[in-house]
Formats: sequence, structure tokens, C-alpha cells
Amino acid sequence: MFEHISKPTLIVDERKCKANISEMLAKAKKHQLEFRPHFKTHQSIEIGRWFREFGIHKITVSSMDMAVYFASDGWDDITVAFPVNWREINKINGLGSKIKLNLLVESVETIEFLSKNLTYPAGVFIKIDAGYQRTGIPVAQTEYIGQLIHKINRSGFMKFEGLLVHNGHTYQAGSVDEIKEIHRNSLIQLADLKKSLSNLAQPIHVSIGDTPSSSICDQYEGISEIRPGNFVFYDLVQQQLGSCNYKDIAVSMACPVVAKHPNRRNIIIYGGGVHFSKEFLSDTSGQKIYGRIVLFTESGWSEPLEGCILSSVSQEHGIVDASETLMKSVKIGDLIGVLPVHSCMTANLQSSYQDCHSNVIKNFRDII
Amino acid sequence: MFEHISKPTLIVDERKCKANISEMLAKAKKHQLEFRPHFKTHQSIEIGRWFREFGIHKITVSSMDMAVYFASDGWDDITVAFPVNWREINKINGLGSKIKLNLLVESVETIEFLSKNLTYPAGVFIKIDAGYQRTGIPVAQTEYIGQLIHKINRSGFMKFEGLLVHNGHTYQAGSVDEIKEIHRNSLIQLADLKKSLSNLAQPIHVSIGDTPSSSICDQYEGISEIRPGNFVFYDLVQQQLGSCNYKDIAVSMACPVVAKHPNRRNIIIYGGGVHFSKEFLSDTSGQKIYGRIVLFTESGWSEPLEGCILSSVSQEHGIVDASETLMKSVKIGDLIGVLPVHSCMTANLQSSYQDCHSNVIKNFRDII
Repeated sequence: MFEHISKPTLIVDERKCKANISEMLAKAKKHQLEFRPHFKTHQSIEIGRWFREFGIHKITVSSMDMAVYFASDGWDDITVAFPVNWREINKINGLGSKIKLNLLVESVETIEFLSKNLTYPAGVFIKIDAGYQRTGIPVAQTEYIGQLIHKINRSGFMKFEGLLVHNGHTYQAGSVDEIKEIHRNSLIQLADLKKSLSNLAQPIHVSIGDTPSSSICDQYEGISEIRPGNFVFYDLVQQQLGSCNYKDIAVSMACPVVAKHPNRRNIIIYGGGVHFSKEFLSDTSGQKIYGRIVLFTESGWSEPLEGCILSSVSQEHGIVDASETLMKSVKIGDLIGVLPVHSCMTANLQSSYQDCHSNVIKNFRDII
Repeated sequence: MFEHISKPTLIVDERKCKANISEMLAKAKKHQLEFRPHFKTHQSIEIGRWFREFGIHKITVSSMDMAVYFASDGWDDITVAFPVNWREINKINGLGSKIKLNLLVESVETIEFLSKNLTYPAGVFIKIDAGYQRTGIPVAQTEYIGQLIHKINRSGFMKFEGLLVHNGHTYQAGSVDEIKEIHRNSLIQLADLKKSLSNLAQPIHVSIGDTPSSSICDQYEGISEIRPGNFVFYDLVQQQLGSCNYKDIAVSMACPVVAKHPNRRNIIIYGGGVHFSKEFLSDTSGQKIYGRIVLFTESGWSEPLEGCILSSVSQEHGIVDASETLMKSVKIGDLIGVLPVHSCMTANLQSSYQDCHSNVIKNFRDII
């Protein structure tokens, strides 16, 4: 397998990706939810086309550049789920002249800025904070939110699209039950907000969408859209949270073995912080985990090997704590696979990917 | 300043870089050390030329691709300070046919591999582990090291260049004294090793070179070469270790302000994990620090602002814990500057940099 690979290469298992897409789409359909997947994880026109095969035609991205990139492949209904960056107003107007572009606001200042500077129509979501405390207007500030909606409705080019929530605090949850609790709380608060906005006499569309709650939860009263992104690849963070199983993780990094230190049972791989990022998980004993080790097979890769972890990374090196079995079977010059901790950050570091049949999959890095 | 900047942009202060280069070069000269700077931090042909202005003509890199990149700009004496990756033997021979290429080995297997597969001459360093325990042969294994040198000397295309050490454990040191202690210990162990290899009747060249010890230490008995890299930019890690002062940090990220939350004194910037990486420092209270905030001036940027830190990053967002003064003075649409935690990882994420006069500085990303 992969005889031609000479340096760290992210392998994408198309079959697993499509199974992950299919499953999330089925959930959206079951709950009559619009499915607007976030493309910030794979950042690839080619993988985007896999979504299109499922009839998906609305997407989410995290930057204007990414919106421009996907629009170039015919995506014409895009939400940029990041607060409007005033300094990119030319890019916003440029893209707004061509596609249905949805923007995100969380202040009266930005609404006034858009009122003055938009030259093409744009949909506008108001970012609501239901507990994550990163961005957004606290869900309890109903009056302020009502005023913003009025202001948007009075403007020429802006069209109020709804409320957008990201419950990123599910990533800090200690259990599946805690994720369900965060999600349930968020639904209750959003229902209250919608009720207090009922005098607006227009339907209030609500978009939510972190991968943990989208994967795990099964209640969506009052919600109209989900926007998960990570699920297309999944990763060790999601596995630890309970969003997926190891077998659902659709990416693994092929890394050349460059040295072995049997005395401390270490395998040194070409694969470090510039390939994986330096995000890590901690196991119950406090051991840092930068990845889990798999072996490539004819059709993909194995389950993670018992007693083998990527225990440390520097710029280009990775150190694998290996089992005795792996120490014996692996030779310098071999390739081993590593399941990444956070696939969004890992994918972002690649200039391209490769599928299980050694075809190159281009990504966003190809053009920036 | 920087009116044209619309998204996170790493600003490089050429004046500061050159002062850092000049100072490290002066130290090397003072101790009669060869200065072979590591280019893995800046990864830029253009910044490489700043080194050349100082008469530097030997360099270190961390990958074969980076060696090929710098060789394309006329660098013809390059050490790849990473264990030989067998899978890149064609690239090794390709470059070895054009320049003086030094490779790094730490096993008899790799020496035998090179014996069979090298088709052009290459210098060979043996990687020695003087306590870091990442890679290298433990310094006490004098007999094995002697055997490897013999094996290298008997091979056709390999030329034994010396011993190469990276004391990366200085990065875990709690104080400047601890860094000095690690460095001193390493010198003693290397002196012992050299003594026990004296029967080889050839001078044993020793190359060391982490930035903390190169910046801080002033004893180099028995050492012939230093290879620090990070010092050209420095960063908050180095400042915390005592390798530099804030004013020496030669890079800062210009980030657009996209939202403000006065109630929790937060400023939201466009600038996240895909721009900075997610490395962090912890202060004495355990608060995570992903960057320190500066303001741009006509000639560069201010000292870090008291009471202001980048306290959290997600993929594209950064959250600044701001002082009351900063909260009041900064408006949505402004740019603020962020000193990075780890400049190597941050620089690696940029597709280009910009100098203080808004000129673009291309880097390695431009071609991969």
C-alpha cells in the first residue's frame, strides 16, 4: 500500500466520508431539518462534490475566502458563519453580486455598517449565544435582539434570515448526557426567545450545529437547520466525546518511520506539529495523546492498535509509544497510520489529501 | 497603518530580525563557532537573504523539501537536521548531486541503507541524545557511536561530519539557571564522548543549537557549531524562558476586530487556530495565553498591553481579554496586533508575510 508516499500524507477514506454524510443527512431528514453542512473541516471542492451527490445544495463556511473558493465550484447558497469582517466589504459585495450569501451579525454597529456599505442583497443571521460565551448576543437579551431584527428589516439590501447558534461548549462536556443537557437547555432558551419575538409576525428560522450535539442528540423542536462540519471526517476528540466510533474516523495520516528506540519502546516518525497541529487529548492517567496508531490494509486501515499512541510531536518529528508487537513488526522505512486528534486543524495543514486508491484530492491550500 | 490589510497577516519587523541575526552571529564569532542557522522558523527565501547579507553561507533545515527550496536560491551547504527518511532517497540523491548536503543518522540500519543507495556524496552527522530523549543515540553509548563512525568512514559516498545534538529539553526548563545547567551538563557529556572517541584520530566536530541555550549560555568548550532557528523571530515562549525580551520579538499578527462584548470585556478578532496554531502558555494562575496584544505604530508596534491577552482561539476566532482602556479605544473594523506564542508554528501557517512597510514576503508555502 502507498509505495509512492514519501512524506506525511493525509489519507481520506471516501467510503467512510460518504457513510458519515449519509447518516447525518438521514438525521436531518428525520427531523425535517434543513442540512447546511459546514465545509471548514475538509476545505476541498472535490469532497464538497461528494455532498452534492446527496442532493445537498446549501453550505456553511468560516471565512469569505472559503466562500469565494466554494462559489467557484458552483455553490450558490452559502452562509459565512463568522461575524462580518468590515475590512472584507469589497469581497462581500463581490460575492453577493453572484450568489445567495448569508452573513452573521452580532452588533448594531455592524448592521449600520452593512446598511451603509452593502451594494448587493445579503441574507443576515443574528448570532445568538446560548451559553458558549465565545461570540453572539446572550439569548436572554430579547429586546435588543428584537431591535436588531427591526433594523435589519428596515434596511435596503439586508434580509433577516434567522438566528444562528453554535453550542461549542459541547466540546468541553464530560459525557454524552452532558452534551444532551447542553443541547436541551439551548432548545428551551431558544424557544423562549422565539416566543418573545412572536410579535414580529414573521417566522423565526433557527440554525444550530456543532458536531457533538448533531451526532448525539435526537430532539430538534423549534430548530430549522443544522450545520455540523467535523462529522465528515470525525477524529479522536469526537470519539472521546461519544459522537463517533473509531471506525467512523475517515482520515488517517500516513507517516514514514525514520528511527526506532527499542530501549524506550519508541518509534520516531516523520509527522509532527506542522502536519497534525499540536492539539492533544489527555487520557485518565494524564498522558497526552497526539494521535492513535493504525496499520494500512488493502482497503483502508485497521482499528487503533492497543497500547500504541503518538505521545509527543515537535515541528517535524512524532514519537510513538509502541507496544512490543509493533516495535518488532515495524521497520525503518515503513509507513504507519495516525488517527488525528482534531481533523479540522490537521486537514488545514495539508496542501492536498489522497484517497485510499492514491488519487490526489486537492483542497483550499491549493489556491491560497 | 496597514489600511489595506483585511485578514490576519503576520507582520515581520525586518529591523528586529536583523538585530537578532547580528547578535547571534556576534556570539558565534566570540566563541569561534561556526554559525549554521536553522531556517525552519522563517521558511522564506527572502528572509534567508537577510542572513546572507551578514556573510552566512551554511544553513540548517528540517525537511528535504525545505532543503530543495533553499537550494533553489543558491544555498549550497545545507544540513537536514532530521533523521534520514529512506522514502526520500531520490530527493536526497537529486540534491546531493548539486550541493553539499549533510544528513543525519542514528542507526546502523540507516547507515547501511545509505551505503547501498547513495549515488552522490553526502556529509553525515550522527545524532546524539544528551538528555532530551526525542531522537539520537544516548551519549553514553560510546562504543556503538564509534562503530557507526567506522562504518560511515568505510562507505564510498558518506563523509563523517561530526556529532549533532539538540537539547530540546531546555524548552521545559523553569528558569534561566536550569537552561544553563542543561547546557553545561551536555558539554560535559559531549566532552567525555569526544575523549572516548579520540582513538579515531580525526577531529570530532560537534554541532548543538536550541535557541534557549544559544541565546542565554556563554560557554562553548568543545563545540564547533551552533544551529539556532527560532531566534530570528523569537516569541512568547522564548520571552517566558528568558531567551529574549518582548522588544526582540520580530513578528506580530495583524488581526481585524470583528465584535466587542463589553459586558465580559472581550474583543473578538479574526485570528484563530488556523493562523496562530493552538499552542499556549500558562501564567502563574493557570490562565491560558494564546498571544499578547500590541498596537501598531508608524514604525512597528508597541510593547504588550498591560492586562490584555488572547485567552482563547477556535478555528478562525480569537477572544481577547481586554483592559478597560483597550475596550474603550478599539472599534469594530480596527486592527490589533498579537505576539505569537510559538513563532515557528505560526509562521508555518502563513501563505506569506508582510514587512512593516506593507511589502509581501513570500515563504515556503508559496511553492508547496
